[in-house]
Amino acid sequence: MRHLLSTKSLSRVEAITLLDIAEDMADVANREVKKLPTLRGKTVVNLFFEDSTRTRISFEAAAKRLSADVINFSAKGSSVSKGESLKDTAQTLAAMGADGVVIRHPASGAPQVLAGSGWIDAGIINAGDGTHEHPTQALLDAFTIRRRLHGTASRGRGLDGVTVTIVGDILHSRVARSNLWLLDTLGAHVTFIAPPTLVPADTSAWPATIGYDLDAAIDAGPDVVMMLRIQAERMNAAFFPNSREYSRRWGLDDERFSRLSSHSIVMHPGPMNRGLEISSAAADSDRSTVREQVANGVSVRMAALYLLLSGDREDS
Amino acid sequence: MRHLLSTKSLSRVEAITLLDIAEDMADVANREVKKLPTLRGKTVVNLFFEDSTRTRISFEAAAKRLSADVINFSAKGSSVSKGESLKDTAQTLAAMGADGVVIRHPASGAPQVLAGSGWIDAGIINAGDGTHEHPTQALLDAFTIRRRLHGTASRGRGLDGVTVTIVGDILHSRVARSNLWLLDTLGAHVTFIAPPTLVPADTSAWPATIGYDLDAAIDAGPDVVMMLRIQAERMNAAFFPNSREYSRRWGLDDERFSRLSSHSIVMHPGPMNRGLEISSAAADSDRSTVREQVANGVSVRMAALYLLLSGDREDS
Amino acid sequence: MRHLLSTKSLSRVEAITLLDIAEDMADVANREVKKLPTLRGKTVVNLFFEDSTRTRISFEAAAKRLSADVINFSAKGSSVSKGESLKDTAQTLAAMGADGVVIRHPASGAPQVLAGSGWIDAGIINAGDGTHEHPTQALLDAFTIRRRLHGTASRGRGLDGVTVTIVGDILHSRVARSNLWLLDTLGAHVTFIAPPTLVPADTSAWPATIGYDLDAAIDAGPDVVMMLRIQAERMNAAFFPNSREYSRRWGLDDERFSRLSSHSIVMHPGPMNRGLEISSAAADSDRSTVREQVANGVSVRMAALYLLLSGDREDS
Repeated sequence: MRHLLSTKSLSRVEAITLLDIAEDMADVANREVKKLPTLRGKTVVNLFFEDSTRTRISFEAAAKRLSADVINFSAKGSSVSKGESLKDTAQTLAAMGADGVVIRHPASGAPQVLAGSGWIDAGIINAGDGTHEHPTQALLDAFTIRRRLHGTASRGRGLDGVTVTIVGDILHSRVARSNLWLLDTLGAHVTFIAPPTLVPADTSAWPATIGYDLDAAIDAGPDVVMMLRIQAERMNAAFFPNSREYSRRWGLDDERFSRLSSHSIVMHPGPMNRGLEISSAAADSDRSTVREQVANGVSVRMAALYLLLSGDREDS
Repeated sequence: MRHLLSTKSLSRVEAITLLDIAEDMADVANREVKKLPTLRGKTVVNLFFEDSTRTRISFEAAAKRLSADVINFSAKGSSVSKGESLKDTAQTLAAMGADGVVIRHPASGAPQVLAGSGWIDAGIINAGDGTHEHPTQALLDAFTIRRRLHGTASRGRGLDGVTVTIVGDILHSRVARSNLWLLDTLGAHVTFIAPPTLVPADTSAWPATIGYDLDAAIDAGPDVVMMLRIQAERMNAAFFPNSREYSRRWGLDDERFSRLSSHSIVMHPGPMNRGLEISSAAADSDRSTVREQVANGVSVRMAALYLLLSGDREDS
Repeated sequence: MRHLLSTKSLSRVEAITLLDIAEDMADVANREVKKLPTLRGKTVVNLFFEDSTRTRISFEAAAKRLSADVINFSAKGSSVSKGESLKDTAQTLAAMGADGVVIRHPASGAPQVLAGSGWIDAGIINAGDGTHEHPTQALLDAFTIRRRLHGTASRGRGLDGVTVTIVGDILHSRVARSNLWLLDTLGAHVTFIAPPTLVPADTSAWPATIGYDLDAAIDAGPDVVMMLRIQAERMNAAFFPNSREYSRRWGLDDERFSRLSSHSIVMHPGPMNRGLEISSAAADSDRSTVREQVANGVSVRMAALYLLLSGDREDS
């Protein structure tokens, strides 16, 4: 693998390979010295055009556990904010010897541009681009589901027949898109539940069921219920009336949580708005995977960095 | 030791153990390669909800000398500033595998909440919480006093009978509080000198003498005079009339400095307002320990990280 | 070498030694593991009183390739911005055990003050001070020119007889000044081309030809044409009428680029204002060294850190 830009472009074999390597990386966390020498002498640049402390430190922790050097490059206050082009930034990082670039960018497609440009030879990992994709989030979600379902017998398996209901702002969510493509590739079935104002106009090409009624979706007994974060700025932009109304209709409150079928798990990419899209009882229950998702995020990012930056990196 | 939250809760044995280990750490600074492999594979997160470059880089230098990986997490611009709870932040850091968390927080008691919560198993070090405590500052102060008094024969000793006069904004100072408890535990006697507006309403439980007259305090010949930093925002809030008036009555100016008894040392936690609470002559004299305090800060923080994060960490 | 403060004070022997060591460092970039253990246990502080992500990460990459620990100290939001003196900041860094300090400061001469003060024993590298100097930029420029002219046979050589035309805001540019002194020391001849408003009032002591006509300068067939970055704030301050006018008279546009003699190279310190001081065709051509300059920047900074911080550091 040369780059990790989207889950839409991942084959089933590639996705399962990545998840399997993440299993190996998760084992490292249990060692006395939680460090592998694998990427010693490699430099990973966190190139963040948007603030995201959680994602940045997850990649930073992953890279350091593989003994890479990490350089944090926040675009704020840099020449980038003075109008330097992505091209010049990329060529600068290339010239400085960056082996991997983790990029978060407000423009959908920016990581693809970077990877396809020839400006830089480094492995590019998309850490979130506009409303497009956030592939490592989807991979850590799939990893988490697979582990919950199959435990130590997860290696080599997909998510065939698993039903996943994703609830919230589908219109703007790169997490929803990345999950959609990856879950479909792995054999799961996705149902999106959202306010009508927060569903894209044309979803005909999406391998998913679209609905508006969370209660009906819960009564269908999905294996996984994934709640998305609601951005306050959406509310202000009148996509829905107010937070109480949102919570009443599309929140996983205590009543809905109690009606979930006994085997269902509850997921959230974080950070959570407790009391808005998810109740504290749901977030903190044994069926919630919120903390596992964070831990698995480090393992999945270690796997991605390993695949892209180790000697085994493919040429195309 | 599992956490370092306050000096009030430190026993004399614990405090002296910490100071003795800091002596060993100070020796490392004289080696050709100033690094120990002790915490290799451990991750220390600097979780700063308030800016404090000096304290942050002191902990960062300490952790790196012990070969730990350091991740800086400034709450500004992070999901924390978007309303994420301390609980969710803590669980995120736990899931990412943080072994130690150095926390600076504007709310008194936040580190205690973190340590007692069960949200995270990491060792917690309080790097300043509201107006409550700043224990590593007090420990480095005690270390500095002990070294000045006993030199290389410091190990194993307390500060019995030492007289320490602390001058300035006692009302708001966590440094003053941490020093009070630790110095008392180590056998020293503390006198606080402050403007009446900058003394707490009820100090009856404090093992200290409270006074308002700096000249009288200096004529009493204390072993240590510790000047606290005056925050400009206090002046604006009318706690004292103006900087000239403050300096005239509670500043260690050249005249007062000249009247100090010949063995007294002058301390300041930094950064100093030269000409306000301390004159340049006093700050730069041989009797000033300002620079030693900074150097000792790294040693004391190495000792704390070692005690909390090495294999010897206690279970309770 | 104890400090690297300016190119004006560098002897020819010192400059060539530094460039030769940079050649060795450039070779490291081609190794499997791009790291040398040379500065293990040393601490380099990036003390930046002005934002400059490019320069900061170049030094950070250089220090990490030599296995030094790096601590980034941005003056923004620190006690420095609350009025702490350079003296107290320096003494703090000294006490924390900084072995090297890379300083960027808006005041011309600040690095010299730091180095000559006795406040700190660390090796000081000037990473840009006011309108005074930016020596590592000039060294990487000289390194780049030497490599283009002599390739692998560069070691030991100066730039005797090379003609260099530097175009742009000479008045405010520390890059221009550092290049002037270094290029002169190495035997090159410098011509400055600038709008009359952007030339210092008295250049009589400068070993350079001053002119205003870029077309004539190009027709003279210089070996090197170095375009400086135009700061938008200069334009607003009425040093020149507008960007179109600047570009028309002092920009390296496609037409002028086509008239360059066949052996000339085109340099720019970056970040570029494409279409203002340089056209994209010129910037991206084979004759442009922009990317090499960035890569060579890391090698030159490794060389400087090595000379200042390794055991071989001179005593004076």
